[in-house]
Amino acid sequence: MVEAVETMDGWYSLHDLRTIDWSSWKLASEAERKEAIDSLDQLIAKWETVEEAGNGSQVLHKVVGQKADLIFMFLRPTMEELSDMETELNKSKMGEFLLPAHSYVSVVELSKYRPAKDGVDPETLPETQKRLKPILPKWEHICFYPMDRRRSGEENWYTLEKDVRAKMLYEHSKTGRKYAGKVSQVITGSIGLDDWEWGVTLFAHEPLQFKKIVYEMRFDEVSSRYGEFGEFFVGNLLPREDIPKYLEV
Amino acid sequence: MVEAVETMDGWYSLHDLRTIDWSSWKLASEAERKEAIDSLDQLIAKWETVEEAGNGSQVLHKVVGQKADLIFMFLRPTMEELSDMETELNKSKMGEFLLPAHSYVSVVELSKYRPAKDGVDPETLPETQKRLKPILPKWEHICFYPMDRRRSGEENWYTLEKDVRAKMLYEHSKTGRKYAGKVSQVITGSIGLDDWEWGVTLFAHEPLQFKKIVYEMRFDEVSSRYGEFGEFFVGNLLPREDIPKYLEV
Amino acid sequence: MVEAVETMDGWYSLHDLRTIDWSSWKLASEAERKEAIDSLDQLIAKWETVEEAGNGSQVLHKVVGQKADLIFMFLRPTMEELSDMETELNKSKMGEFLLPAHSYVSVVELSKYRPAKDGVDPETLPETQKRLKPILPKWEHICFYPMDRRRSGEENWYTLEKDVRAKMLYEHSKTGRKYAGKVSQVITGSIGLDDWEWGVTLFAHEPLQFKKIVYEMRFDEVSSRYGEFGEFFVGNLLPREDIPKYLEV
Amino acid sequence: MVEAVETMDGWYSLHDLRTIDWSSWKLASEAERKEAIDSLDQLIAKWETVEEAGNGSQVLHKVVGQKADLIFMFLRPTMEELSDMETELNKSKMGEFLLPAHSYVSVVELSKYRPAKDGVDPETLPETQKRLKPILPKWEHICFYPMDRRRSGEENWYTLEKDVRAKMLYEHSKTGRKYAGKVSQVITGSIGLDDWEWGVTLFAHEPLQFKKIVYEMRFDEVSSRYGEFGEFFVGNLLPREDIPKYLEV
Amino acid sequence: MVEAVETMDGWYSLHDLRTIDWSSWKLASEAERKEAIDSLDQLIAKWETVEEAGNGSQVLHKVVGQKADLIFMFLRPTMEELSDMETELNKSKMGEFLLPAHSYVSVVELSKYRPAKDGVDPETLPETQKRLKPILPKWEHICFYPMDRRRSGEENWYTLEKDVRAKMLYEHSKTGRKYAGKVSQVITGSIGLDDWEWGVTLFAHEPLQFKKIVYEMRFDEVSSRYGEFGEFFVGNLLPREDIPKYLEV
Repeated sequence: MVEAVETMDGWYSLHDLRTIDWSSWKLASEAERKEAIDSLDQLIAKWETVEEAGNGSQVLHKVVGQKADLIFMFLRPTMEELSDMETELNKSKMGEFLLPAHSYVSVVELSKYRPAKDGVDPETLPETQKRLKPILPKWEHICFYPMDRRRSGEENWYTLEKDVRAKMLYEHSKTGRKYAGKVSQVITGSIGLDDWEWGVTLFAHEPLQFKKIVYEMRFDEVSSRYGEFGEFFVGNLLPREDIPKYLEV
Repeated sequence: MVEAVETMDGWYSLHDLRTIDWSSWKLASEAERKEAIDSLDQLIAKWETVEEAGNGSQVLHKVVGQKADLIFMFLRPTMEELSDMETELNKSKMGEFLLPAHSYVSVVELSKYRPAKDGVDPETLPETQKRLKPILPKWEHICFYPMDRRRSGEENWYTLEKDVRAKMLYEHSKTGRKYAGKVSQVITGSIGLDDWEWGVTLFAHEPLQFKKIVYEMRFDEVSSRYGEFGEFFVGNLLPREDIPKYLEV
Repeated sequence: MVEAVETMDGWYSLHDLRTIDWSSWKLASEAERKEAIDSLDQLIAKWETVEEAGNGSQVLHKVVGQKADLIFMFLRPTMEELSDMETELNKSKMGEFLLPAHSYVSVVELSKYRPAKDGVDPETLPETQKRLKPILPKWEHICFYPMDRRRSGEENWYTLEKDVRAKMLYEHSKTGRKYAGKVSQVITGSIGLDDWEWGVTLFAHEPLQFKKIVYEMRFDEVSSRYGEFGEFFVGNLLPREDIPKYLEV
Repeated sequence: MVEAVETMDGWYSLHDLRTIDWSSWKLASEAERKEAIDSLDQLIAKWETVEEAGNGSQVLHKVVGQKADLIFMFLRPTMEELSDMETELNKSKMGEFLLPAHSYVSVVELSKYRPAKDGVDPETLPETQKRLKPILPKWEHICFYPMDRRRSGEENWYTLEKDVRAKMLYEHSKTGRKYAGKVSQVITGSIGLDDWEWGVTLFAHEPLQFKKIVYEMRFDEVSSRYGEFGEFFVGNLLPREDIPKYLEV
Repeated sequence: MVEAVETMDGWYSLHDLRTIDWSSWKLASEAERKEAIDSLDQLIAKWETVEEAGNGSQVLHKVVGQKADLIFMFLRPTMEELSDMETELNKSKMGEFLLPAHSYVSVVELSKYRPAKDGVDPETLPETQKRLKPILPKWEHICFYPMDRRRSGEENWYTLEKDVRAKMLYEHSKTGRKYAGKVSQVITGSIGLDDWEWGVTLFAHEPLQFKKIVYEMRFDEVSSRYGEFGEFFVGNLLPREDIPKYLEV
């Protein structure tokens, strides 16, 4: 039957990308730069407390290339908290040197394509809850891109029977599973929240794995015939303690 | 027959999105910032008087992500009033700290796909008038996006018989009705007024409902085969009394 | 036969849209603002003399929404005059506060799809000349949008026989005629002059009529299957004597 | 056979479009403006010497509308010379008041669709050499636009047999020949050099001829089914001696 | 079988394009400009040491036209090193005069479409290693563009059998081989790393060869039916010792 699949939804997500205004940064006094770095450090410290309490998660990477310099990924139980984090960053001393570069609003999502086992609602399972409210891995590399399912003529995901979609997604997941340990993935849904239908965030120890998994997956029918992809952003982990060095001029 | 459906049209609508120039805001003196906040507060107070008199409506939310910081939705009986509101905001002290981010011009619209009951013109009914000149709900969350009906090859909304379109829209409305109480919707027409054919504004108590309704509706034939969607903006309500705190630096 | 229709061409046209730099405007001294308003007033006075002499026409509206603040539509016998008007505006004191927002270059156009009556070349008729060199109506509202005729696969305007095109355009004109007195239309051709093939400029006393006519026309085959539309701009008339009030800060 | 046609290639071409920063221009002192105008005059004088020696050509027009204010078209034997001209302009005093608006890199191109006559390589003929290294006409109006040949489904120029393409191009050239004396055309190839496959530069005494020729040609199969067109720029000749007046404020 | 081909991957690649802020450059003092040129010279000197040690490669060209002024192509064993180079440039004195213009992230890639000879893994061969970690030729001209393989309806690269793709690519390579000595090519893969699937970087002694090879290749089925191309950038070599002259004002 052609029907929407039910989804399970977890924390809200904000990808917040910023470009450093290096000219202003270099013009600022040593004291101002210190104040700015401290302000960012304090925000991160506060956010880490939230993560430790299991009330959210976040990660920060340096973007490679000119699309941005920094990518923050924030997860929180409510949209209000995400908005507050964004505003806090804007108001901080560091915020004066950060230009908006891109953002993406979504919510962690799992779909219920497969029937419940033994009548147990999968949403009640601890492992599901852990996936819906994930502590983001602090792996060396991040890759983020948004995607749609195609709706054009003969290639229309939204006019396919649910079990046909389920089968294609199952095949797709088998490709993904080959990368266990090499690539960690968080899927966020953004229909009704941002310009694409889903966001895909990948983490890896080696950036080559991003190319390998996305390339291999592109041959899965669900991608080759039904996938439309947006901009890709890749970054290298920026641990809190490395920020002063990164910003040193 | 392939013919346009008649529409009933109510108040004109302007979605006005602004980005706060946080750098200038922080550079401004305490006195200037107070003057700016007061100027916005006075405009809203004036607008509220209009709403109380039943001569228009408006609502203000904080946009999540970098597409904008604020989204005003204005409804007024004439296009001149909308233009005046926009100009007033531009000229206000607060306007000096607001950068244009996006806007959308349209008019509240209902279509007459269904035959008049007992020969009564539906436009004369009080409930219709209330929907054409709606007082916007002050719900916690807003979602705005523009849309077109597809006109390409075999999938051309504008070459379909009127009753075929009516049937698809009726099925679609049934999906919508499942969200009664959870999602409140205002449809505005913008053919001849702005770049897309319609604007959809949703209000919800929980932003997840935006994803749920738009996702479920995407499987309705009217969307899966005939819907084209633009940018999505989501926001959290910014009540008048919370503005000073939001802008505090 | 697949062949171009002959056109009759009148005055050259420039739609010139500007955004007011409200921040600079407010920072300017009272004397500077007066000088600027005077400079615009003098340009308009000069242009009005040209219009009175039947050597061109123009009209000025305030654009609703953020696409621009002002839309000038200029008609003149030569492209050089249009260029001079644009340059004059750029060099004027007012020009210092006007940011370029959009422009469109075209020429008033009528097509000769219908055979000449009694062997009379329609271009020689006074009513044709009046339509080719029109004095623009000073109606309350303007709507401007560019359009193309589709050239894709089965829907290719440029591979249709001339009489098939003529028939579709004739049907289309009947829809237009229903709006006589409510909507006044100027068609300008821009193939070889700007990015779209035609510009459509509509004038109305009530902006709702823009939506009604464009919506109804979209169901005509010439639009539903062969029309591609660009950005829409709508505005409210700004009479010369209202400019000081509009710009008062 | 589906194969590339051989091309004959002449001078490299750079279309260099600039917007005048009128605000800075007016703020500059009389002496600075004189220095700037002199710097441009000296560059043009130098370039004219090159043209007189038959080592290149160039022309300068004022662009109508807001896409740019000036369009330079430069032709030179090497890409290095084009780069030098662009850099010289950037470094000149005038360059301080010119904002980049658009550019296009290509090379004058003729194709060898027709067989050599009597075994003579057409490239060796003086008339061919003159067309490959043309002295640009100093006609009143310029029109520039880039174009592609379509590659989509059934309409794919690059899968057509060479003689089918040749026939269509020959028909097309007959349309062009009707405009002899009214429109002068320079075709430049840009596959591998810029974003479109070809640049078309037209010169005319009357800008209406741009519309007439491009409109009529659009009904030729080579355009209606295989042409994709980019932005159009039109301009009025700016003779060297008129520059001071044009820039007078 | 429809399956991904295995790839061999070498050094990571960053194309980093910058526009010179000529206005700021001219406003800077002689001493500042000298400091800036020295800072760039020192960076290049450091990078050359890396290249001499076989740990990476880079090349610098002046871009023709307004898309950028400079194009750096960097190759390094890790993404971290690329990020460091970009940051170093941003922090350098020269960086204060360089505006971001474009960038592209990818990795040198060879595909294993052909079976291993005599059971030898081609990746182990010295000639393969040399191609995966190439010292970029310091040829006079560079051409860079990104590309995708088409995925639409009947023309979907990703639903073709592997041997069908292999055959088309083999035919394509034969066209390429005709340009041996005239054009040198580096293919970098960017699926999962940047917005297009591959980057193509060509080097030539004569820029006309870029047009010739890309034009001829466009008639190969792999391009005519399966190639989608992005922006093209061309440039002239800027040897380290010529930088001071290039920047002299």
